[in-house]
Amino acid sequence: MTDARPKVVIVGAGFGGLTAAQSLAQVPVDVTIIDRHNYHYFQPLLYQVATAALSPADIAWPIRGILRRQRNATVLLANVTSIDADARIVRAGSVTIPYDYLVLATGATHSYFGHPEWASSAPGLKQIEDATSIRRKVLLAFEHAELTDDYEEQRRLLTFVVVGGGPTGVEMAGAIAEVAHHALPAEFRRIDPHAARVILVEAGPRLLLTFPEDLSLYAHKALERMGVEVRTLARVTNCDEAGVDLEETRIEAGTIIWAAGVVASPAAEWLGAERDRAGRVKVEPDLSVPGKPEIFVIGDTASAADATGGPVPGIAPAAKQMGRFVAHVIASKVENTTSPGPFRYRHQGDLATIGRKAAVVKLRAIHLTGFIGWLFWGFAHIYFLIGLRNRTVVAFSWLWNYLTYQRGARLITDSPDMQKIARDEKMHSLHSAADARHGHGRDQARSGTADWQ
Amino acid sequence: MTDARPKVVIVGAGFGGLTAAQSLAQVPVDVTIIDRHNYHYFQPLLYQVATAALSPADIAWPIRGILRRQRNATVLLANVTSIDADARIVRAGSVTIPYDYLVLATGATHSYFGHPEWASSAPGLKQIEDATSIRRKVLLAFEHAELTDDYEEQRRLLTFVVVGGGPTGVEMAGAIAEVAHHALPAEFRRIDPHAARVILVEAGPRLLLTFPEDLSLYAHKALERMGVEVRTLARVTNCDEAGVDLEETRIEAGTIIWAAGVVASPAAEWLGAERDRAGRVKVEPDLSVPGKPEIFVIGDTASAADATGGPVPGIAPAAKQMGRFVAHVIASKVENTTSPGPFRYRHQGDLATIGRKAAVVKLRAIHLTGFIGWLFWGFAHIYFLIGLRNRTVVAFSWLWNYLTYQRGARLITDSPDMQKIARDEKMHSLHSAADARHGHGRDQARSGTADWQ
Repeated sequence: MTDARPKVVIVGAGFGGLTAAQSLAQVPVDVTIIDRHNYHYFQPLLYQVATAALSPADIAWPIRGILRRQRNATVLLANVTSIDADARIVRAGSVTIPYDYLVLATGATHSYFGHPEWASSAPGLKQIEDATSIRRKVLLAFEHAELTDDYEEQRRLLTFVVVGGGPTGVEMAGAIAEVAHHALPAEFRRIDPHAARVILVEAGPRLLLTFPEDLSLYAHKALERMGVEVRTLARVTNCDEAGVDLEETRIEAGTIIWAAGVVASPAAEWLGAERDRAGRVKVEPDLSVPGKPEIFVIGDTASAADATGGPVPGIAPAAKQMGRFVAHVIASKVENTTSPGPFRYRHQGDLATIGRKAAVVKLRAIHLTGFIGWLFWGFAHIYFLIGLRNRTVVAFSWLWNYLTYQRGARLITDSPDMQKIARDEKMHSLHSAADARHGHGRDQARSGTADWQ
Repeated sequence: MTDARPKVVIVGAGFGGLTAAQSLAQVPVDVTIIDRHNYHYFQPLLYQVATAALSPADIAWPIRGILRRQRNATVLLANVTSIDADARIVRAGSVTIPYDYLVLATGATHSYFGHPEWASSAPGLKQIEDATSIRRKVLLAFEHAELTDDYEEQRRLLTFVVVGGGPTGVEMAGAIAEVAHHALPAEFRRIDPHAARVILVEAGPRLLLTFPEDLSLYAHKALERMGVEVRTLARVTNCDEAGVDLEETRIEAGTIIWAAGVVASPAAEWLGAERDRAGRVKVEPDLSVPGKPEIFVIGDTASAADATGGPVPGIAPAAKQMGRFVAHVIASKVENTTSPGPFRYRHQGDLATIGRKAAVVKLRAIHLTGFIGWLFWGFAHIYFLIGLRNRTVVAFSWLWNYLTYQRGARLITDSPDMQKIARDEKMHSLHSAADARHGHGRDQARSGTADWQ
């Protein structure tokens, strides 16, 4: 160790880790930020990639690009596999990275409430890859429905179930309804996408539980106006390839999207530290790990209590505030200045969009809904994007989307299902269907096809 | 068969098939266009997706979206598996689609001159998926080089070989050189992307053989100015994971991109028709298959002789002209009007871009190079994109790219290599490297790292 400057290693380049790295720019330390992706992405808009409104690159930036001018920062693309807290070393396979201060900001992943087997049939939405595979799943459902002559199968394929009535679930359900009812109808000849069912399932008594009641109620009504079936107090008891079981009923569905629980990444296991039910590391008021003052845990990986006693929510602004805070704590230790004291979380508000001209916004006492809320939501998100390019492209895509009702990124790529299409036993001769267009169209009418000729 | 209107089935929604479908809009037929992708894409710009300048969605459009207003057109997402020319049926697995007229426009794929085993180590660039996986490969090469302390391995990883000096090869080599020398240098701390070698290998005597000599010469010089090593009269004798063998020498390379030969899709096999060396179906002057006047083959799948006797080149404008032509032939048969006579190909010119402010354009007697050629190339390509949205986004991306030297879509997604990173045995402690930054930097200097501190 001939290195003069303290080494700060940050694991995870999400909102928390990236903010921590940037906040250390002027501090005399060497920062190494490690992520298993080469990009930082804007999770709040991931559902728009999943519903073909935006491309992955519109909401993602190479981490190196963001930190290119920060001379004390090194970026490593690697999978962290373990931490040796005694030797103060982070391991990524055969690569070992020594640290003086360690910041763990590895985020969270989906939780299936002890049913990991549901994951394959009910994918969640956390990573860019999740978004593109959900996009593929949703678009293929319409394509398969167009190909099949089996009416029941068609109905099943055109049924979309979103599990979880939080912001992500609300946004996914609204966006899928828009795709089905606005973007696609004119494009199919044998099915009517209008006939698609979008069902939002929430175990709790109302949607958006963290929001005030009037806003949940508005979201509920707005979704129903958009043709989404909202089911509250409905608990999922099973998910499989063919559908979802609720306590009373079963829903045959071609697509199930999981937006319910999250569980923290394995940082706690790496440290052997005490964790809460969601697997998050219980941290001290300065966000350090009990007994390890040089290790900090932030963002969705941390179970932190606000200085005021309340829990810190797992949202982007909280992660950013924690990242900025630990940077100050580390700076104070390195420069022997007074420590900033306990972490104080400032809640700025809650936002969720439902669809065209419909969003809910809570800023302290102010509650916004409808068009105003939607505009506020849009500008707020554009504002928080990084860089002129992505702001411009996203703003343009939204404007275009708003004016034309079209989705710009409707590509089915890298699709393992492609082979399946040809093999699908449910598909018979299109002969009959072609005839139906000019003769016995009754079958088609049954399958809700409105636009023959 | 109660169907009153003749059924035209088109297989393949590339330039040829899509143009044929659109040219049949006003003809009293039912058009069914079948593709294994749900999108039509603009192949001439695929290399810009492969080099992170554009996103897939910027150069691709859902086929349904393009044909949404054409009421006589049905789009099917399916893999055609065989054709029964006697029963006049197209088979896609268990799906059967009857036709009265059949248009085969299934394009071409890479040819490894009888060495299919090279495909895994030297991917080609034909599909959107090829472009994203080449993008991943190129970007990961720099990431792996940053992680390793093995100087030889670093050199190998930073060596990029492009095989084939046609337009695609020239464009890929130029674009990779730009990424290495302009986009990335400021972003790495342990390697210097400037040290990257880009080698363009061409078996023939000069680049862009189909272009006039002065333009090939300009392209050659322009590439060298950009730091690309051009090797003409160099034949590849072997490709493997570690590099490329030429007749005299071996090049250790981390990335090999195949832009050499193409071979037609298996349409000829489906038909049991006579084919040329490139697997293309030899067609009649009206582009129909000998002995099967109701089956037409167009685009890269057809071996057609122009009415003037010359061969029709495998480029987008030729495919479009063929598509328009067969639509007229079919219309004349359906409406019993006079047939348009033999196909006449009108060659509009040749374009290839090399990089910033450098392109070569041949329009009849006019030869353009440099900035003017580059502007012409850019406007021509934007003009041929479909729809306002993609034109705007691409134009904006290029402007941004031009002004900032940055690439907007530098994402490593869906990467199977990600796990490999952690396992890679070549990677030792980064400890030494971190020290090197402040102490014995000689090793780093050797590996070309110019920008410590």
